[in-house]
Amino acid sequence: MLTNKLLTATRRVRETPFTPRVEAAGVKGYSVYNHMLLPTVFDTPERDYEHLVSHVQVWDVSCQRQIELIGPDATKLVQLMTPRDLRKTKLLQGKYAPLCDENGTILNDPIIIKLESDRWWISLADSDIKLWAKGLAFGQGLNTQVFEADVWPLAVQGPKAETLMSRVFGAQVQAIRFFHGKMLRFMDNDMLVMRSGWSKQGGFEIYLDDASLAEPLWDALFEHGKDLTVRAGCPNLIERLESGLLSYGGDMDDRHNPFEVGLDRYINLEADIDSISLPALRQLAGRHQRQLVAVMFDKTVEASDFLLRDKGEVVGNLTAAAWSPRFSQHLTYAMVNREWLDQHTEIEMDGVRGKILPIPGSY
Amino acid sequence: MLTNKLLTATRRVRETPFTPRVEAAGVKGYSVYNHMLLPTVFDTPERDYEHLVSHVQVWDVSCQRQIELIGPDATKLVQLMTPRDLRKTKLLQGKYAPLCDENGTILNDPIIIKLESDRWWISLADSDIKLWAKGLAFGQGLNTQVFEADVWPLAVQGPKAETLMSRVFGAQVQAIRFFHGKMLRFMDNDMLVMRSGWSKQGGFEIYLDDASLAEPLWDALFEHGKDLTVRAGCPNLIERLESGLLSYGGDMDDRHNPFEVGLDRYINLEADIDSISLPALRQLAGRHQRQLVAVMFDKTVEASDFLLRDKGEVVGNLTAAAWSPRFSQHLTYAMVNREWLDQHTEIEMDGVRGKILPIPGSY
Repeated sequence: MLTNKLLTATRRVRETPFTPRVEAAGVKGYSVYNHMLLPTVFDTPERDYEHLVSHVQVWDVSCQRQIELIGPDATKLVQLMTPRDLRKTKLLQGKYAPLCDENGTILNDPIIIKLESDRWWISLADSDIKLWAKGLAFGQGLNTQVFEADVWPLAVQGPKAETLMSRVFGAQVQAIRFFHGKMLRFMDNDMLVMRSGWSKQGGFEIYLDDASLAEPLWDALFEHGKDLTVRAGCPNLIERLESGLLSYGGDMDDRHNPFEVGLDRYINLEADIDSISLPALRQLAGRHQRQLVAVMFDKTVEASDFLLRDKGEVVGNLTAAAWSPRFSQHLTYAMVNREWLDQHTEIEMDGVRGKILPIPGSY
Repeated sequence: MLTNKLLTATRRVRETPFTPRVEAAGVKGYSVYNHMLLPTVFDTPERDYEHLVSHVQVWDVSCQRQIELIGPDATKLVQLMTPRDLRKTKLLQGKYAPLCDENGTILNDPIIIKLESDRWWISLADSDIKLWAKGLAFGQGLNTQVFEADVWPLAVQGPKAETLMSRVFGAQVQAIRFFHGKMLRFMDNDMLVMRSGWSKQGGFEIYLDDASLAEPLWDALFEHGKDLTVRAGCPNLIERLESGLLSYGGDMDDRHNPFEVGLDRYINLEADIDSISLPALRQLAGRHQRQLVAVMFDKTVEASDFLLRDKGEVVGNLTAAAWSPRFSQHLTYAMVNREWLDQHTEIEMDGVRGKILPIPGSY
C-alpha cells in the first residue's frame, strides 16, 4: 500500500491547521487531496482499521474543502450542478449528490450542505469544482459568489464517537440525525457539527472555521477521550471497502456516469428541476456498458496490473483491493463489462475463486 | 526539503507511462501535481542542480497535462481564458499565458499551444482547468470539445540537450526556435517536439501521445546520451529560483493577480480581444498592493514560519527559498507589501543582510 518514496514538502501542497497535531501523533503516510495533505496511515492499515471499528478516532479531513456558493442565484447554480433534487433540503442538512456534466459524467461526489436559503457548501471529493462552478456562473451570468471557504473539517469516527462528542459539545449532539447538522459552541465559537463522515462506524464531522481553534479542539477531543482509547486516524481503505464508500478518482472519475458506479438512487430522473446533466442521464439510464461490483476472493489474489481476467480474457479492471476481516475475504472493487456480468456470478483468477456481488451497503 | 513521510500509493494519484523507468532510475521523492506523480529528487536537490546545469537530464513531466480545446469556438474560448493576445500565434507555437478569471485573479499559468486553426492545448500548471474551460463553454453555449488529452510530456533539459535530441530526432531539432515546435518522428510515430521546459538550461519537451512508446523513448535517450552523462532528473527548486520561473500554487495562486507576480508583459491591456479578465485587469494595473520579489541573503536565514520580518514587523511572506550556487546567496522569493517595498532596498532578518531585487531573469 505504501510506496517507499518520500513526499516532498512544497508550499503548493498545503498543510492544515491540524498538521502539527497529526505529525505529533506519528502519522506515517500522506496522500494529496485537493492540493492539501491527507493523512493515510498511523500504525498499519490493518491496526488502524481494528481500532476504528472498536473505539473512536479523530481524523484531519481538512482536504475535504468547502466550495461556498452565496447570492441570489446560489440555489439555481447548485441545482444545475447535480441531478439530485435539492428542493426539499432543510437548513443544515447535507445530501450526498454526484456532480455531473452535460454528458452525464461524474465530476465529483460531494456532500452538498444547505447553510441558508441562498448559501450552500459543496463538501468536496478530489477535484477543483470551484473552477466548474465559477465557469458556469460566469458563463450563464448568474449572480453568485463562488469561493473556497476557510473551513477545515475534522471527523470524529468510530462506535464511541457519540460519547466523545457529547463530552466536548454537550448532549445535544445525540439529537443530530444522520446527514443533518447543528451549530454548536466550542470555546465561545459556533461551528457546524454534522452526523456524517467517510466511514460506517458512526460519527460526526466538525466544520471548523477558525484555524486558531484547531489545536485546542484536537486537544479537547483527546483530553475527553482518554478512557475511550481515542487516537488519531484517517479514512481507511479496508473499512471503506467493507462499507461501500466510493472514492472519486479511484473507483470512478470523469470517464464514468453515475449508473456505472451504482449511484442511481441519487439521480432524480423524473424531477422537474433545471440540472445540466439530467437530459443526458435520462438517455443513459439502463444503457450503461460497465458496472462497478465487489469481487470477494477466498484468498488474496495478486493482480499487480489491476486487471480482472476470466480464463485469460480481460473482463474489467480492479479499482481497489484489501483483505477484509469482516468478510474473511480478499475484497476488491472492479469495473466490469456488463454483458459479461449478466452471465457470471463467479470468477476464477490464478486458481482462486471469486464471488461477484453488488457493492456492499449503501451511502 | 523532504518530509520524513511516505506517499501512499492510490489509484487516485496517477502513475505515468514513464513511472517504471523513473522508479528504476532511483527516484527518491515525489509530489502530486494534477492528480499525478511528479518526481522531485533523484540524488540530492543540490547534486541534481549541479548535474542539470552541466549535462543533460530526462524529466517525466507527464503531470503537465494537456487540456485540448477543439471545434469551431475553440479559439474564442482559449482567448476568453487569457488576457494575453493570442491572435498572432503560429501553428505549433507555444505562449506562456496566465489564465485569469473575471476578477483578474490567476487560475493557472500554462503554455498555450496552437495545434491547428481550431485546436489548442493548454499545457497546465497544477489546477483542474478542464473544469473552468468546460464550465465557460457550457455556460456560454460555445461549440467546443474540452478534454484532457492522452499526452505525457517528457522534458530533455540541460546544456547538452540539443546534442542528445539531435541524435534521437535528427538535426532538424536544431532549427526549432524557443517556444516553437515541430512534428518529429520516433519509431514511425510523429509527435510534437518543442524547445521549452521548466528550466533555463536549454532543452526540449516531447509531447508523447502513445503510452506504448514511453519506455522505448526513455531508453533511446539514455542509449544515445551515455557519453553526455545523461541521467533522470526533474524540475529543480534551486535552478528555477535562479532562473525566475514561477510556481503556481507556491509563488502565486487564485488570490493573486498577474501584476503582483510581475507577469505584466503577458497581459495585453490594450488589445481588442474578448477576454474575461481584461476589464478587471485594466482597473487593477498599477494599483496592486503586493509584489513578488527576490530577497538574497548573505547567508541562510531560518524562517520556519515563512514570514518576512523587518525589525519584528511582518512585511510579507516567503514563497520559496534555497541556497543559490550561482549567486552565492540564500535566494528567497517573497510576496511583500508594496508600500514597504517602495521605501526599502534591503532588509535584515536574524542579523543577516538581505538585498531586495526583482525576480531574476524573465520567462
